[in-house]
Amino acid sequence: MSLPSFVAVDWGTTGFRLWVMAAGGKILNATQGPFGMSRLKRRDFPNVLEENLSKLGIGSDVPVIICGMAGAAQGWCEAPYLAAPTRLDRLGDGAVKVRGTARDVRILPGVKQVSPANVMRGEETQIAGLLHCYPDFEGTVCLPGTHTKWVYVKDKTIRRFETCMTGELFAFFSEISVLSHSMIADGWSDKAFREAIKTATQDPISVPKRLFSIRANMLVGEQSSGEARASLSGLLIGQELMSVQPYWENQTITLIGAEPLYEMYLWAFDELGIGGKALDIAKMTLSGLQSAHFNQKGKYK
Amino acid sequence: MSLPSFVAVDWGTTGFRLWVMAAGGKILNATQGPFGMSRLKRRDFPNVLEENLSKLGIGSDVPVIICGMAGAAQGWCEAPYLAAPTRLDRLGDGAVKVRGTARDVRILPGVKQVSPANVMRGEETQIAGLLHCYPDFEGTVCLPGTHTKWVYVKDKTIRRFETCMTGELFAFFSEISVLSHSMIADGWSDKAFREAIKTATQDPISVPKRLFSIRANMLVGEQSSGEARASLSGLLIGQELMSVQPYWENQTITLIGAEPLYEMYLWAFDELGIGGKALDIAKMTLSGLQSAHFNQKGKYK
Repeated sequence: MSLPSFVAVDWGTTGFRLWVMAAGGKILNATQGPFGMSRLKRRDFPNVLEENLSKLGIGSDVPVIICGMAGAAQGWCEAPYLAAPTRLDRLGDGAVKVRGTARDVRILPGVKQVSPANVMRGEETQIAGLLHCYPDFEGTVCLPGTHTKWVYVKDKTIRRFETCMTGELFAFFSEISVLSHSMIADGWSDKAFREAIKTATQDPISVPKRLFSIRANMLVGEQSSGEARASLSGLLIGQELMSVQPYWENQTITLIGAEPLYEMYLWAFDELGIGGKALDIAKMTLSGLQSAHFNQKGKYK
Repeated sequence: MSLPSFVAVDWGTTGFRLWVMAAGGKILNATQGPFGMSRLKRRDFPNVLEENLSKLGIGSDVPVIICGMAGAAQGWCEAPYLAAPTRLDRLGDGAVKVRGTARDVRILPGVKQVSPANVMRGEETQIAGLLHCYPDFEGTVCLPGTHTKWVYVKDKTIRRFETCMTGELFAFFSEISVLSHSMIADGWSDKAFREAIKTATQDPISVPKRLFSIRANMLVGEQSSGEARASLSGLLIGQELMSVQPYWENQTITLIGAEPLYEMYLWAFDELGIGGKALDIAKMTLSGLQSAHFNQKGKYK
């Protein structure tokens, strides 16, 4: 049996995912939980990490590399942003060693863009993973989620990026806003989604006045919860797409995201005649953490 | 001292406002509280009303007329929508008499529009009040709030209307979303508001990608809470304005709204070269309730 060589952790706002890795890149063990930054105080981070490692029987000599919001100012230990344009094969160079821990724990930096102002934490590691798997990659990467990122990559470098709060908006509209009353039941409608994508991409300026119609349609007409939910998703994704048009025009988009979200983006791309292919988010994250770990390994003291 | 002739109530989603009126239209007494529909079960409505009337010493022979969400399906007693286009001087005809109360209590209907689907409850009474005060009014009325309404009125009739969820969105972004971390302190910036209005009205399609910049600007640059809040407000109001352009183009807009919200709209109108004048929301509501009360009075049994 292989010995653990290092531990890779994706530590985000809401979740925590950990892999125990052999030197050759084999996954020896893995765990995850809802121990995201938003639930933790600074002093909680080392305990959460050590408890999880202890359960898996990982000795204190095994180093840990972390990406994501654990490196934010309000996280465990701030890992200052790299400034775009920035090469990704040097992501490990920006790692910050956490002080006061017996174990060697390093946190990867996020990436910032000064103008227009933007930031990412976690997505840069997924893109580093993409470059690790496809070293010659050039083009646009779309990472759909709470805050969807659109990133243009060339020469192993993040050139520029944009963020749309589409996932957070969808959660608000469908769970909190007055529209939520029209989405109480489960369900989905491909037809309503495609129609909403068409409406929003052909007339994006009209989206603000169309959102309330989702509620009104239920009150004055006939509409299922599934149609309401799909219409909302289509309007928001369509509006997002039009706001980042230079990122996808004449491009084949590489999607890194979780199911079923990336499928909605693929349908939307299809509606606009954009080519797209999806990559597994966990695989990209792990590849990125792994490549950053080995790239900075020589510098371990 | 004048005797109470009737009681007028504006009963919305979050608030309750009551006026005791003399026959001649004089306000004899008034009260208000946070007893909105969203906090009440159906059986609570009569108790809330009678407790408030009892404190003011109003006998059970004094009739009550109500507008707003108390007439919604999930309110006290459903008052079915009138269908636009609909005349407003006949609003009282659509009033529904609440069953099972000793007192004569009537609830005014809202207005629906079948295509594009839309609904209002409460705003129609404010517009009836506008027509009571200015019988020859013709043009666009903007009623900014949680769900801002844009209403085209001609021949004492609501011809058509649109709804933008700008107020609810502003509350979400500034109090719940990740942007809220950039608006912890109080404050406001007229300059940032006007710049955001300019940005959003010149390039409305870009708004979805600009919202997250409000957060990023704080992380990578310098920006006060007041600038962040004003930028958010300007982006959302600007985006709204562009989505309802046919309502304000070549029009002088009549605003019915509360301070400071209507002032923001007046600044935004100014930025776009639109003329606007603001009317007092409480006065319009009360005028609308009063005219509906007297128009249907002959039908009281």
